[in-house]
Amino acid sequence: MENLRLRVDRFLHGRTVQHVITGVILFNAVILGLETSASVMARVGPLILFLDGLCLTIFVVEIAAKLFARGLNFFRDGWNVFDFLVVGIAVVPAGKGLSVLRALRILRLLRIVSVTPRLRRVVEGFLAALPGMASVFLLMGIIFYIAAVIATKMFGQAFPEWFGTLGHAAYSLFQIMTLESWSMGIVRPVMEVYPDAWMFFVPFILVTTFAVMNLVVGLIVNSMQDAHHAEENESTGAYRDEVLARLEGIEKQIATLAERR
Amino acid sequence: MENLRLRVDRFLHGRTVQHVITGVILFNAVILGLETSASVMARVGPLILFLDGLCLTIFVVEIAAKLFARGLNFFRDGWNVFDFLVVGIAVVPAGKGLSVLRALRILRLLRIVSVTPRLRRVVEGFLAALPGMASVFLLMGIIFYIAAVIATKMFGQAFPEWFGTLGHAAYSLFQIMTLESWSMGIVRPVMEVYPDAWMFFVPFILVTTFAVMNLVVGLIVNSMQDAHHAEENESTGAYRDEVLARLEGIEKQIATLAERR
Amino acid sequence: MENLRLRVDRFLHGRTVQHVITGVILFNAVILGLETSASVMARVGPLILFLDGLCLTIFVVEIAAKLFARGLNFFRDGWNVFDFLVVGIAVVPAGKGLSVLRALRILRLLRIVSVTPRLRRVVEGFLAALPGMASVFLLMGIIFYIAAVIATKMFGQAFPEWFGTLGHAAYSLFQIMTLESWSMGIVRPVMEVYPDAWMFFVPFILVTTFAVMNLVVGLIVNSMQDAHHAEENESTGAYRDEVLARLEGIEKQIATLAERR
Amino acid sequence: MENLRLRVDRFLHGRTVQHVITGVILFNAVILGLETSASVMARVGPLILFLDGLCLTIFVVEIAAKLFARGLNFFRDGWNVFDFLVVGIAVVPAGKGLSVLRALRILRLLRIVSVTPRLRRVVEGFLAALPGMASVFLLMGIIFYIAAVIATKMFGQAFPEWFGTLGHAAYSLFQIMTLESWSMGIVRPVMEVYPDAWMFFVPFILVTTFAVMNLVVGLIVNSMQDAHHAEENESTGAYRDEVLARLEGIEKQIATLAERR
Repeated sequence: MENLRLRVDRFLHGRTVQHVITGVILFNAVILGLETSASVMARVGPLILFLDGLCLTIFVVEIAAKLFARGLNFFRDGWNVFDFLVVGIAVVPAGKGLSVLRALRILRLLRIVSVTPRLRRVVEGFLAALPGMASVFLLMGIIFYIAAVIATKMFGQAFPEWFGTLGHAAYSLFQIMTLESWSMGIVRPVMEVYPDAWMFFVPFILVTTFAVMNLVVGLIVNSMQDAHHAEENESTGAYRDEVLARLEGIEKQIATLAERR
Repeated sequence: MENLRLRVDRFLHGRTVQHVITGVILFNAVILGLETSASVMARVGPLILFLDGLCLTIFVVEIAAKLFARGLNFFRDGWNVFDFLVVGIAVVPAGKGLSVLRALRILRLLRIVSVTPRLRRVVEGFLAALPGMASVFLLMGIIFYIAAVIATKMFGQAFPEWFGTLGHAAYSLFQIMTLESWSMGIVRPVMEVYPDAWMFFVPFILVTTFAVMNLVVGLIVNSMQDAHHAEENESTGAYRDEVLARLEGIEKQIATLAERR
Repeated sequence: MENLRLRVDRFLHGRTVQHVITGVILFNAVILGLETSASVMARVGPLILFLDGLCLTIFVVEIAAKLFARGLNFFRDGWNVFDFLVVGIAVVPAGKGLSVLRALRILRLLRIVSVTPRLRRVVEGFLAALPGMASVFLLMGIIFYIAAVIATKMFGQAFPEWFGTLGHAAYSLFQIMTLESWSMGIVRPVMEVYPDAWMFFVPFILVTTFAVMNLVVGLIVNSMQDAHHAEENESTGAYRDEVLARLEGIEKQIATLAERR
Repeated sequence: MENLRLRVDRFLHGRTVQHVITGVILFNAVILGLETSASVMARVGPLILFLDGLCLTIFVVEIAAKLFARGLNFFRDGWNVFDFLVVGIAVVPAGKGLSVLRALRILRLLRIVSVTPRLRRVVEGFLAALPGMASVFLLMGIIFYIAAVIATKMFGQAFPEWFGTLGHAAYSLFQIMTLESWSMGIVRPVMEVYPDAWMFFVPFILVTTFAVMNLVVGLIVNSMQDAHHAEENESTGAYRDEVLARLEGIEKQIATLAERR
């Protein structure tokens, strides 16, 4: 049994299977793309749906085999969990009511990231940058919450569509932070009712823009230091080691010279 | 008396009280959030208002106790002043007329920043970056003032809503600087009356964008240098000290060798 | 024959011819600019067209001469291929039906880049930065494809103009990524039909903005390292070589001292 | 005569005069601001105009005195030329027809920059960054010219307001480059007539955005290197000099040791 598991594991992580899976993902991408075309579906709909089901079956079999080979260790690797979830979403909606879940089936194409080492590294790089930004994110969350409460209380009654509830206000403030139509679309109309509204919105824009700017700056400094370190260890480290080794050698030589006398 | 003060101070800065205060702030955040919901207020309004008053009372008591423990030294720490102000705003409007002040009561949630060391450091980092940018801010202020005067004089009569007064013009120029609807919303309509208006607005956009870009660049260079320095002092400093110490040792050895002869 | 080719090659790459070609390109730029003016064309149209033809003839003759001088080696230099293509576009449309091709004739002005060393270096710098960004571009392509499929399936029927086909959806998502009218123009109208649409669009904006931010950060780090390396090799390298040479010299001196005894 | 010139020069650059001039500029700023208010002008208009004339007179006298003191050397300093021009603009329009020139009189407030050393340094820093960006600016100019010609030829007839002439097209392309209403405002309407118009505009956005990004990156790398150099010369240079000096000392000691024998 253990033997079989090992052989299945080696087979699944072999080159051939990896290439086949990559091919199936790309083929599935085309199939799911064609599914969006009404004319294609009208002509060869059943074929498309059959091929999509075939791709999905292959994914399910692959993951089931991996689960068999690894047991619960399978879930120790984050990418395996990721594969499990994006394929799982595609299996769940047996019922045809939930159109959202059906649309999300396309998420299984994200598996192309987990099977391509280069893309995995890019995504891992993205994720590695997030913890360092946690404090700023938390701070922005606090600012957003406070600003949303103020906006709801002050402008909620006059502009229920934009600031009627906390959720509406948070969405509108996010729009304002991205600077999309913030003035012509939102603040100028609000100022017609509350002429001093700019005293709330302009500082909000300045503060959130400054916070975002700090996020970017933090990201740049971190990346730069990582790159700097990686480099230092190569050339500077070797040079320093050599200098120290040679100085030690000279010390010993002189000590020998002094003793010999 | 002095003894009591000391004991109160130690009690207030103890772990338990800090955690309780943090909890009260978070609880108060939820309460103030619920206050924005009309349906919640209709059902349990009095309870919400009571709990809010309770939270506020706790804050007032805490700050009063701190004032008692520290006396006027309390105001030496900027964060204490900050706590005093945001809680003070919530106490002031006994009268029910000033809705703005009531909306600003939510600002007391900002105390979460002053009680969380990590967030304090982020905000202190933000504030530390400001003085280095003072000259550029001053320059942008001058540009804005001059541009506002020119815009008011040239376009004020034809477009009173956008450039009627210095204040309106400054707001419109701020909108233009953020690039929001600058052309379709403002400059194209203005150009229908003054076809050469782009000769004012396009350079204004170029200059202010360039100034903002320089702000960001300055921020990046500063952060990078801070990070660089902190790092240098660790590894390079130690290495350099060792090299110099060893060189000195060798010099002394040789000197001994020469003397002994 | 070989001799003639060599002489033609030397002649074509001489200063005089380079300056003449640069002059012709600039003159042609003016001519093509004048061609866009209806009033100028009404008065001296035939002259303009004749001068444009003359410029084109000079370009064709130059490239033909280069082809003769270099043979197929001509195509080994990417800039030669570039020149060949942008002049070629201008020659192709003998028929007067294809107005697009006629408009593209202006692309031959891009030759000013290939004949100006400084501009060539800038463009080569741009192109050199692209391969390092390939993984992120690929990732963004995947995100766009998946988001376009989801958007088409979920909002395609209700908003055929924005999300009717994969192509329409990709264009709309590109617009949303640039933050242009994303909320007022697209997402708010969509939310009137599907109130939860923000759950798709807001994460899409966050993810793509973060990816673009990472592109910029990568570009900065790369440029900085290139600049750093170029500099290091000058001063640090020379210093390090001297220190090592001196240490070696001291070692030898001491060894001689020890031997001589 | 020479003596008088020297004394005038020393007087003009003395602390008192500098402070007085700074004060006059700030006072003039307030006056010119008040001039934009219709109600203030209705009440104390003549006084405002008189005070403005007084300020202007002081500036003219100051510059005339400087011209007398320095002669033509006055124009050797760029900031003097700047002062001369911004004050000159205010003197020129004796006739009351040219309202633009009257609005530009406010430019004399820019003198605050030339009399404040810190602001001068910021502006000089901005200007120093420009030459390094010249090639990219030139390239963007070429791209804009070519894109404007193409846009005029292809969309000029159908959308004369946006692309009717080279100038209109250049302005519209600038708007598109700033991403303001590029899609909803311009490209979607254009695509209703020419469905393939995105094939021109989307690449234009990508190319110009990438070029702007490179400008920013170049600016960052330059600033960082300047900061890095300034720093290096302090600590690293001193350390390196000491190491080399000590190594030389050791060499000499050993040489003496060897000779003495």
